[in-house]
Order: sequence, then C-alpha cells, then structure tokens
Amino acid sequence: MPGEDGEETLAWETLGTEIDYTCPGFDVRRDDVRLPDSTETEYHYVDEPPAVVILPFVDSGPADGSAAEPGNPGERLLLIEEWRQAVNRVNRGLPAGTIEGDEPPVQAARRELREETGYAAGEVEHLCTVEPTNGMANSVHHHFVAFDCAPARDQDLDFNESIRPITVPYREFRTAVLADEVPDGRATLAVSRYELTRLARDDNPG
Amino acid sequence: MPGEDGEETLAWETLGTEIDYTCPGFDVRRDDVRLPDSTETEYHYVDEPPAVVILPFVDSGPADGSAAEPGNPGERLLLIEEWRQAVNRVNRGLPAGTIEGDEPPVQAARRELREETGYAAGEVEHLCTVEPTNGMANSVHHHFVAFDCAPARDQDLDFNESIRPITVPYREFRTAVLADEVPDGRATLAVSRYELTRLARDDNPG
Repeated sequence: MPGEDGEETLAWETLGTEIDYTCPGFDVRRDDVRLPDSTETEYHYVDEPPAVVILPFVDSGPADGSAAEPGNPGERLLLIEEWRQAVNRVNRGLPAGTIEGDEPPVQAARRELREETGYAAGEVEHLCTVEPTNGMANSVHHHFVAFDCAPARDQDLDFNESIRPITVPYREFRTAVLADEVPDGRATLAVSRYELTRLARDDNPG
Repeated sequence: MPGEDGEETLAWETLGTEIDYTCPGFDVRRDDVRLPDSTETEYHYVDEPPAVVILPFVDSGPADGSAAEPGNPGERLLLIEEWRQAVNRVNRGLPAGTIEGDEPPVQAARRELREETGYAAGEVEHLCTVEPTNGMANSVHHHFVAFDCAPARDQDLDFNESIRPITVPYREFRTAVLADEVPDGRATLAVSRYELTRLARDDNPG
C-alpha cells in the first residue's frame, strides 16, 4: 500500500540484509533496519520458500455448490499422519510442501499431494494465500482444495518423511476442528476457511 | 496419542537436543534423531515460547448467541497496522504476543491487547489453540475472542514495535478474508474459525 499513511509513519527502512544462519529446513536472515524514530537496529527472521497446503476430498466434492447443508455425509477427507519432531508427536494434518523453483503453486499442490499420499487430484481450486507467522518468518502458504482425489501410485517421500495417508469422514474432522481437537494450524485454517466459503455461497445462492 | 499404531511406525526417537542458533526473536534447536528405519540424522526447528492472538470486538459482541445473521451491522473489530519486516510491508492484523513465564494464556491475551492497542477487554473467550507451522517451528498460538473492548490507556510498545490500532466494521473485514485480501494468516484463521463457531451455533440453537 505505497503512498498510504501507514507506510509513512510505520515503515522501516532496510539498510542491509544477510543470511545469518542456515540449516536443512530454512535460513535465518538478518536485516539492518532504521525504525520510524531513526533508531538503527537489526531484525532476524526465518527465510524460506513459499509452500502449498492441500485440503483433499476423496469422494465427489461439493463443487456443484449444493452446500445448503455443509459437509454432506458422503464426503471423505484425505489426511496424513506424520511425525512432527518440533512438537514431538504424530500430527494429523494436510498434505503440504515447498514450491520448487518457478513451479506454479497449483502444480506444486498436485505434485505434493501425489508424493505424500499417492493420490492424484481431480479439480483443484485456490482457497487462500496467507502468511502464517509474518512476525517471525517470511513463509507464504497457498491453500488449495482438491476434489475427486483417487489413488494413483505409491508415495514418493523424502528420506526423513514419515507419513501415512488416511481417509476420514469430512464431517467428523470438521467437528474435531470445532472442538479444538486439531492442533495442526494449517488444517484448522483450511477447514474453517473452506466452511466460510460455503457459508457465503449459501448466503448468496446462484 | 501414545499406544496408537501411529506412534509405533511413524515416531522418531530423540537421541539429543541442543540450541544451535540464537537471535532476539527465537532460537533454532537441533535434535539428533533416529528415524523409524533406524537412520540417524538431525532435525532443525525454531524454538519459541507460546503466544496469544486476540480477535477483539469493540462494540457489544454477539456473546448473546444471536448469530442468526452472522456479523451484525454494529460490530466493529479492533485491528492493528504494524510494520512486518519479514514480509516488507504494513500488515493489517490482530494484536498478538508472547506469553510471559507462567502467565495464563487468557491473562496474556488481556495484557497484549492493552499494550498493543491501549484497549481493555470485557469478556474474553478461548477460540482455539493451534501450531501454525509445526514442520518448521514448535510455535503454539492460543486464539481468543475479546468482547466489549474499550480505550483504557496509552499503548505500551517495545522499542521496535511500530503499531497503530484502528477499528473497522467486522463485516467488511470478514468480506476481505473471504476475498483473499487478508494475507495475515492469524487474522484469516481467527475470523474463519470464529465464523465456524457461529455457524455451528446456528445449526444447534439453544
């Protein structure tokens, strides 16, 4: 929003930037900055490439817009159970992964779904693009909804990925999100945001 | 979920752990791990304390459950405009911050709201607790909804916080979330998740 009042009084000036630390998952970048009151200081944040997150429906999804009753009984969600070392537990969540080079996000979504679950997607729709933690990282997550996913081939995992695909009734998982029983933030965001879309469709039919 | 099948076949064993890097915002921790196939390797992730995120309503909120029409016209949301160096722009988002020591999350929510906006909250309700990026970090975000927020005193900011509180019609902001015009992931999650709660309340009145 250049030119808006916000930029003028809130913006920091970047005087320099450097990678301060590197590990297999990400870098940490250190910027030399000048604050609005002219103080000079440093700011550190995680620097990583953008990623995709996929909310994958196995049976025919509600692409026809017949969402008068969100979550029809037949809908099943394809989830992954995956060890998450950072939180020391098996996480039930959504397929996700980093975009490779100039790969379009929707293509990365199809690729990650195939690699992590062995399923191929039918129609894929963009849901939203968010920065999950923009105080600490420059991470960008492109969320997609994938319909009519079907088993296509074996998983193709990185050496340190421990992933098992499972399918669950979508309604059950939505109920678990509502009961605060899904600690995975990307899954909670995707399901909630998808329901918001359905709700808006109900409010404005046709 | 100890004892479940998932733990046995997916779990990693932690052989050692060490802080590998420190900066003002967070640490990076390196764990020595043994994978399910007995491979020994390392895993790096951001180590930071849990945080709170507040979705603050200024006028009387819908605490009475009268949510037949979600987002009544009078509702206003208290947002902050804040410089986010990691994404190089002013972010329109929610008050948030780190829990201090043994502080209960709900108390941290009231404190961060006061410090970042100068507003004091009336009733505060827990919305959800999520790990926004549990592949890369052990971050935990406790989301709260705060009702009847009112100006109480001046902001109390850290030296490098550039924050301006603003109020906007809640409906407008929800529409912006739906239009994918709110890149802030925490705000998108909080609004979508809050609407899911209202939707469920509609489905099961009383």
